[in-house]
Amino acid sequence: MRLQHATWQEVEAYLRRETGIIVPIGSTEQHGPNGLVGTDAICPETIAWELGERHGVLVAPTQNLGMAQHHLAFPGTISLRPSTLLAVLRDTVTSLARHGFTHVFFLNGHGGNIATLSAAFAEIYAERSLGYGSQPASRLNLTTCNWFAGPRVRELAESLYGEAEGTHATASEVALSWFARPEAVKQVEMSPRIAPRGSAQCDADEFRRRFPDGRMGSDPTLASVEHGQRFLEAGVDDAWETYRAFIQAG
Amino acid sequence: MRLQHATWQEVEAYLRRETGIIVPIGSTEQHGPNGLVGTDAICPETIAWELGERHGVLVAPTQNLGMAQHHLAFPGTISLRPSTLLAVLRDTVTSLARHGFTHVFFLNGHGGNIATLSAAFAEIYAERSLGYGSQPASRLNLTTCNWFAGPRVRELAESLYGEAEGTHATASEVALSWFARPEAVKQVEMSPRIAPRGSAQCDADEFRRRFPDGRMGSDPTLASVEHGQRFLEAGVDDAWETYRAFIQAG
Amino acid sequence: MRLQHATWQEVEAYLRRETGIIVPIGSTEQHGPNGLVGTDAICPETIAWELGERHGVLVAPTQNLGMAQHHLAFPGTISLRPSTLLAVLRDTVTSLARHGFTHVFFLNGHGGNIATLSAAFAEIYAERSLGYGSQPASRLNLTTCNWFAGPRVRELAESLYGEAEGTHATASEVALSWFARPEAVKQVEMSPRIAPRGSAQCDADEFRRRFPDGRMGSDPTLASVEHGQRFLEAGVDDAWETYRAFIQAG
Amino acid sequence: MRLQHATWQEVEAYLRRETGIIVPIGSTEQHGPNGLVGTDAICPETIAWELGERHGVLVAPTQNLGMAQHHLAFPGTISLRPSTLLAVLRDTVTSLARHGFTHVFFLNGHGGNIATLSAAFAEIYAERSLGYGSQPASRLNLTTCNWFAGPRVRELAESLYGEAEGTHATASEVALSWFARPEAVKQVEMSPRIAPRGSAQCDADEFRRRFPDGRMGSDPTLASVEHGQRFLEAGVDDAWETYRAFIQAG
Amino acid sequence: MRLQHATWQEVEAYLRRETGIIVPIGSTEQHGPNGLVGTDAICPETIAWELGERHGVLVAPTQNLGMAQHHLAFPGTISLRPSTLLAVLRDTVTSLARHGFTHVFFLNGHGGNIATLSAAFAEIYAERSLGYGSQPASRLNLTTCNWFAGPRVRELAESLYGEAEGTHATASEVALSWFARPEAVKQVEMSPRIAPRGSAQCDADEFRRRFPDGRMGSDPTLASVEHGQRFLEAGVDDAWETYRAFIQAG
Amino acid sequence: MRLQHATWQEVEAYLRRETGIIVPIGSTEQHGPNGLVGTDAICPETIAWELGERHGVLVAPTQNLGMAQHHLAFPGTISLRPSTLLAVLRDTVTSLARHGFTHVFFLNGHGGNIATLSAAFAEIYAERSLGYGSQPASRLNLTTCNWFAGPRVRELAESLYGEAEGTHATASEVALSWFARPEAVKQVEMSPRIAPRGSAQCDADEFRRRFPDGRMGSDPTLASVEHGQRFLEAGVDDAWETYRAFIQAG
Repeated sequence: MRLQHATWQEVEAYLRRETGIIVPIGSTEQHGPNGLVGTDAICPETIAWELGERHGVLVAPTQNLGMAQHHLAFPGTISLRPSTLLAVLRDTVTSLARHGFTHVFFLNGHGGNIATLSAAFAEIYAERSLGYGSQPASRLNLTTCNWFAGPRVRELAESLYGEAEGTHATASEVALSWFARPEAVKQVEMSPRIAPRGSAQCDADEFRRRFPDGRMGSDPTLASVEHGQRFLEAGVDDAWETYRAFIQAG
Repeated sequence: MRLQHATWQEVEAYLRRETGIIVPIGSTEQHGPNGLVGTDAICPETIAWELGERHGVLVAPTQNLGMAQHHLAFPGTISLRPSTLLAVLRDTVTSLARHGFTHVFFLNGHGGNIATLSAAFAEIYAERSLGYGSQPASRLNLTTCNWFAGPRVRELAESLYGEAEGTHATASEVALSWFARPEAVKQVEMSPRIAPRGSAQCDADEFRRRFPDGRMGSDPTLASVEHGQRFLEAGVDDAWETYRAFIQAG
Repeated sequence: MRLQHATWQEVEAYLRRETGIIVPIGSTEQHGPNGLVGTDAICPETIAWELGERHGVLVAPTQNLGMAQHHLAFPGTISLRPSTLLAVLRDTVTSLARHGFTHVFFLNGHGGNIATLSAAFAEIYAERSLGYGSQPASRLNLTTCNWFAGPRVRELAESLYGEAEGTHATASEVALSWFARPEAVKQVEMSPRIAPRGSAQCDADEFRRRFPDGRMGSDPTLASVEHGQRFLEAGVDDAWETYRAFIQAG
Repeated sequence: MRLQHATWQEVEAYLRRETGIIVPIGSTEQHGPNGLVGTDAICPETIAWELGERHGVLVAPTQNLGMAQHHLAFPGTISLRPSTLLAVLRDTVTSLARHGFTHVFFLNGHGGNIATLSAAFAEIYAERSLGYGSQPASRLNLTTCNWFAGPRVRELAESLYGEAEGTHATASEVALSWFARPEAVKQVEMSPRIAPRGSAQCDADEFRRRFPDGRMGSDPTLASVEHGQRFLEAGVDDAWETYRAFIQAG
Repeated sequence: MRLQHATWQEVEAYLRRETGIIVPIGSTEQHGPNGLVGTDAICPETIAWELGERHGVLVAPTQNLGMAQHHLAFPGTISLRPSTLLAVLRDTVTSLARHGFTHVFFLNGHGGNIATLSAAFAEIYAERSLGYGSQPASRLNLTTCNWFAGPRVRELAESLYGEAEGTHATASEVALSWFARPEAVKQVEMSPRIAPRGSAQCDADEFRRRFPDGRMGSDPTLASVEHGQRFLEAGVDDAWETYRAFIQAG
Repeated sequence: MRLQHATWQEVEAYLRRETGIIVPIGSTEQHGPNGLVGTDAICPETIAWELGERHGVLVAPTQNLGMAQHHLAFPGTISLRPSTLLAVLRDTVTSLARHGFTHVFFLNGHGGNIATLSAAFAEIYAERSLGYGSQPASRLNLTTCNWFAGPRVRELAESLYGEAEGTHATASEVALSWFARPEAVKQVEMSPRIAPRGSAQCDADEFRRRFPDGRMGSDPTLASVEHGQRFLEAGVDDAWETYRAFIQAG
């Protein structure tokens, strides 16, 4: 069930049954010559919607902007500063907790968000631990699930691309986004075939010097719509397994 | 053209032609017994995508969360505080300005966002005016266009619903969101037929006391998918007229 | 009654009778060749003090600084950023609410403050709606009344100046400030007689390019002290009507 | 010259002659049974206006709100948090520096503001020292002058009241505010005659326990309008001496 | 070389030779029945000072407070919120960059700091990438090295303690802190011998419910001063290897 | 007792006896040609540890970074902005108050911290006074004790150095830091013998213009390790007297 398509009474009814919710979170950033600027949002959103349909879990609207400062030297990238994203996450969780949600599961499509998600969880918990705000009796459970890091997805990427998978504008995420948006598939030649590897821990100008066409260690020309469908299946299975464990852990 | 579906090279090419961009901005909040929680995001997003397709304007990802504190007593509402939304808008505009965008056109679906959008524009301009940050030579033009307030849309709503249009969970926005999401159409009985009128300038508990089922002055049972299509046409024409004037003015 | 001239026991006694308060809020910004830098604060302050005297309402000290970033290219302008003004308003309202004030009526003299006032009200309500802070049982009612937009004031300006009233450094506000400060009346020649019209949605350098002597669409040489007295009467009547409705509504 | 009564061209002309400005800063807080809530703003404002008239120095609008958290258990007190006041001071100074003011002289009426004024100066300097913002070539000189602590004022208070002067709601400040506002003089009996002494370093409830009627160590029944006139003379002489030294040092 | 023991001229001379610096960062938090509240600061500080002595690298003062909100239900814990720690790290790095340091190596003793360190690096880089502040020509390289996660340290802990090492109040960190502070060695009985395992992603009260004596999965009674000496050697070798690679990469 | 060397159970036991704690706070900043960058942290830390040992008071880890923006033109200085230091102090005090500490005694080594410490106390109290956060029943007492300003220390400095003591990189603090770190004693020639006097109220570049080698009015070549021992005794006696009065006042 998508929150955007529900009425408040339907949400109220859902909360009488279960109190978990999935929040897809991505980024709006360059993904190399054939990858979409929206890749990191489209991938977890697609998996989350499928999860919502198959398993009846409520799915919040996608957080389309993430922490992408290192990609800002490529046109189209929009980045929140970590402090801004932290505030967004805090308000999101506080709103949900007010309604009685006890488990907020961020299904994440962007490595650059992981640290800020974790810092935001700590900021939210710290308000409780330091005694600010009113203290709801119920527990609050927060977690990040990176769709691209699940065991089935990792295995599939390894078997399809090996070393050419890379770490940004990866073959697997390009494939999944193409399956979700077949009208946006692009065939572009790239050179070198496999992009240089390296660290993204730097500012935007330095990042572009290190990674001239935006890819990091990947050959996304290997991607295909058909692969994308398999990544969707793998991603849904990985995420569902993680979600259930999250709910059961309590 | 949707930014999420473009590559960075396509954005680079676009910027050589034109430097305007449309950013749909909505809210995630209750819209009465038959309105969708996502109404305020779905409406401007639908109009923006249509504009992008018909006229080739670039459309950024939708800002799904807005300032909806007064709706927080209804399950499903997620609100950013004004200070958080201001930071999001500042980072968004700063990112776009870095790439050379000179005209950022926020196509807004939620009355509660208007003040914070305006305050955010002033905050961004104030950084320039007070001399913080590096000062790009190019002008920066920011505006808000409320799809629901355009002349064609207003006229259509008046002709279809008269007084029953209301001011929240309006018949017109319910119609447009249903046209965009026909699978989510709900038939729900409401009483009284036309909801009470009043001010939304209050906190969440008080809002729910004033407006028990979430509607303000509206009878959204009058909405239909067919009306929605007409609102889309009216909204596209209104917004395109405003967008062109914005670009030409500046 | 002016708060600055009361003792705390007198305020305590007032609160046993009524719980509304008027806060004049202005700006410190250029007002063209014959308008005072303090115009936007002097006008609502003068009306508020008159209201306080005639009707016994408590009047807080004037907030002399507002959001005036677009005027910063003219010497003498002092601007708060919207985020700063928001914090000031939040602390002001929180202080007043602690004492039991339930209705805070901002009598505003500057269009540039309106959005931030509204965003600040939402920020204050959001703390209640999101459950931060202790939640006083009493309702909190906040409103902005723009003295220059009341029906009597608008009618008088129309009858006296027609199109030459303008939108900044208007003939009406210059007249009222002159009545309040007759020692500061200036006779200055201006050319063109009626200043150019346009939008103030820009940064300070751009604003000065658009409006070289600071006026927007006005001919304030038409102003006179005698007009000012009539604007005071109109402004007091408009504001008192609005204030009473505010108290009764809530 | 009062900034509020000047046009921007008059400020421009002033800046060709001199680049110093006086900013009166006070507080809005209880001042015991016969002291005015506005005492701390009225006193420095009165001295500053007199200085402006006698010596032609420009005087900015009064900052009426200060850091008064410890007085919040007495009705009528309005306090800014230190972090808010710091932002106000930063924006004020940044605005003035943009116009070319090089010496900003805060004439202060409230002991509770001193630390935050000093912290704000450091915050402003730190932006330059850490390399944020554009770095104007000109020096920026900031200082606080406490009118109540000048040698002539101290001597006069000692000679008139001795130990009964106290440290809050002092006889001297009540006298000066009465001279400035003779219509607001109050005759109130107090017991004990001299209020208890102690520290104001605590929260509002504790402060009221320590100082039940709001006075700290003072007997303000000794104050008179005639004394107030003498305090004005002493205050003007003290402040002018300090101001000239400030300008000459820099 | 310890920065605290150097003069500014000695630092100036150092910067002519090399531009890297080590910043030990820890936490002040409970470490179970026999572990010191300062463990997380003492461990990286001890390794850093040894590195400084052996290899002549400059070592900044230890950041003793970290993000420890989940330990706040145990007396003695002092936690910064992530947003506060982020500001501290930003000011630290900005200060160092002003002097010409190009490589800042945070030697970290606390897992709870990792996310905020990473978010802070992104916040610092984002200011450059978004164009705030002045942009120094030199590159800025930031990294976190967790002493407890190096290969030699991991291997030693595995060989000495196996599963009893645990994840908080570990045997290895207790050993190292005891070697550094032999006067503070405590012999305390614990039950169960190995503490429960689990997640620390929760607030303080919940953490204490999960981990009643503060340990997570460890048996720190196995620790000894002699082990501590071996951990120091392993930690110094691990950190030095990482530091050299960091300098050479950049 | 040093908090870093205690277990949480030992802190728990301490809190049953007494609820005061000493927090040494310093700065990391140049101290002239023969003074250590860590002087301002080392001095109060040394006194605090001695106090802890002699009188059994609990001593928190040293806050090594303070507000030192004016020293940033000298290599090695690390400064927090006042707003950052304020947040650190707020989190520190809030953490301690959660455990039941009622008296937090900041033993300060740096004049530049005084204003921000005072502003931070007001910020913390203001949260209580304005009604944010949960309101613990217990009182909270906060104070700053400047070790260098106590009567015994002042008298000793006067007798040993007279005018050559100065106000930054003073002979007394250099002596005490040398006693604490005899391995870091430096013999450096300086000219002029006594450094120029003046105000530190300026930015970093201006400060270095005023005070070319970093000293303010001092001749620290007069310092000796033996003097340092005497300053330690004087400092311990001064601080202990102040601490006891603080606890007894209540």
